Amino acid sequence: MTATTRVRVRYAETDQMGVVYYANYLVWFELGRVEFLRSLGFDYSRMETEDGCILPVVEARCRYRAPARYDDSICIEAFPLLLRGSVLKFGYRILRETDAETTLLAEGETVHVVCDRQLERCPLPEPVARLIRAAIPAAESS
Amino acid sequence: MTATTRVRVRYAETDQMGVVYYANYLVWFELGRVEFLRSLGFDYSRMETEDGCILPVVEARCRYRAPARYDDSICIEAFPLLLRGSVLKFGYRILRETDAETTLLAEGETVHVVCDRQLERCPLPEPVARLIRAAIPAAESS
Amino acid sequence: MTATTRVRVRYAETDQMGVVYYANYLVWFELGRVEFLRSLGFDYSRMETEDGCILPVVEARCRYRAPARYDDSICIEAFPLLLRGSVLKFGYRILRETDAETTLLAEGETVHVVCDRQLERCPLPEPVARLIRAAIPAAESS
Amino acid sequence: MTATTRVRVRYAETDQMGVVYYANYLVWFELGRVEFLRSLGFDYSRMETEDGCILPVVEARCRYRAPARYDDSICIEAFPLLLRGSVLKFGYRILRETDAETTLLAEGETVHVVCDRQLERCPLPEPVARLIRAAIPAAESS
Repeated sequence: MTATTRVRVRYAETDQMGVVYYANYLVWFELGRVEFLRSLGFDYSRMETEDGCILPVVEARCRYRAPARYDDSICIEAFPLLLRGSVLKFGYRILRETDAETTLLAEGETVHVVCDRQLERCPLPEPVARLIRAAIPAAESS
Repeated sequence: MTATTRVRVRYAETDQMGVVYYANYLVWFELGRVEFLRSLGFDYSRMETEDGCILPVVEARCRYRAPARYDDSICIEAFPLLLRGSVLKFGYRILRETDAETTLLAEGETVHVVCDRQLERCPLPEPVARLIRAAIPAAESS
Repeated sequence: MTATTRVRVRYAETDQMGVVYYANYLVWFELGRVEFLRSLGFDYSRMETEDGCILPVVEARCRYRAPARYDDSICIEAFPLLLRGSVLKFGYRILRETDAETTLLAEGETVHVVCDRQLERCPLPEPVARLIRAAIPAAESS
Repeated sequence: MTATTRVRVRYAETDQMGVVYYANYLVWFELGRVEFLRSLGFDYSRMETEDGCILPVVEARCRYRAPARYDDSICIEAFPLLLRGSVLKFGYRILRETDAETTLLAEGETVHVVCDRQLERCPLPEPVARLIRAAIPAAESS
């Protein structure tokens, strides 16, 4: 299962090469995974404040295929790849959409360790965990 | 009394016009006022965590004179303009320094209301207040 | 005439005070004025690349009324205040929308000088200028 | 050979978790690799404008070990790992320095493809290439 988020490239996100600065793709990844959780019925901001459950990133990776440019219509796809104990891994695809075509701009992954407010590892609340497990493609979870 | 901070323009701070994106000057203002407090012997991060004293911005203003460019050597001047009750106002000058000349790139002000952890107005801790008052140019404080 | 843009607060836009960092409101202003131009039928990215017409900011100002927080639903209102020769001024209102109420979070203005590719002052292309003039509230343009 | 750059964590770089937002480490990586080039006698901004030689990132990776916090004194280590044709790989270590100890906060790599102004692959100018090759640790380049 994949969540899809749409954003337009902001002027602030470009750099003097005329393309989106490479660190900003990690911001888009974050928008994507929050929307993924929302699509399961979970509100990350509430998970953080009410359940005291946070998802710090322990690893992030991005492969850049083609540059995004100012005002491009960007589609962020986010999907879970793995949930094992406290370790949660997401995958992402960043696409540019025009009337004529869809172009893959970047792909990546982030790895998270589920933590409580004291930044100690803890399991993901079971209702979220169950839905995320169900959303992981079979080939990945085997 | 003015505190001076030096930074180099980061690639991430430029936009596709080839100059520093306008919102980033407010980040530089912040670096300047923190250095100003440090020059008085106060550590803003400690004020926030230990004294529970925060300085949210209620107004910010910037006039842009000339663009800053990637890798420019930037000098941030920050100085207090006013302290009246809980209201604290800083002024800033952003300069580019080369071997040959110094160019004024921007000027601005920020107005802050001193608050406690509950975001209620409170007075600035007296030791800081006294030093800030002493640092305000006479013409301004009158 | 006012253009309205909706965004959700990104995690990257918050700071350790738990609210949106103050410089990010200027990014939202930019989103608003681009949407305003789009609502008139003008594409700022095309104005920049095809007409060689850019709108560098010469002054920006923001008054912060209440903090925006992570995941808040933000409404950005942008409207022209003045067009005189090459000088163009926009006003902005940043609002938080919940089911229950709408809260004004910030207000501000930016002043721009219309420039060509060589950063020389030039008039705004007449079709845009006419529509912007028509969109300025009467009280302001008098 | 490793270049070392020192920065202080900016308030703008923190997020509501009270730590540096994860995308900002990629900004630090960029500061580090520019300083590395400068330490060899090359000015990246001049390489870009005069030689028309740019280094777009095709892959970036970061492993986060411990969080950086506001006002921390950060040391960025950057070093080349590989240069083969147009492909250039850098490694990074992000450290926090206090009087008492040095803590590894993050490690990562970026891969770049040397391009000309038309974003076509091209070789790195030979003087830079020679110095970079000499700076690559033997174990890596074998």
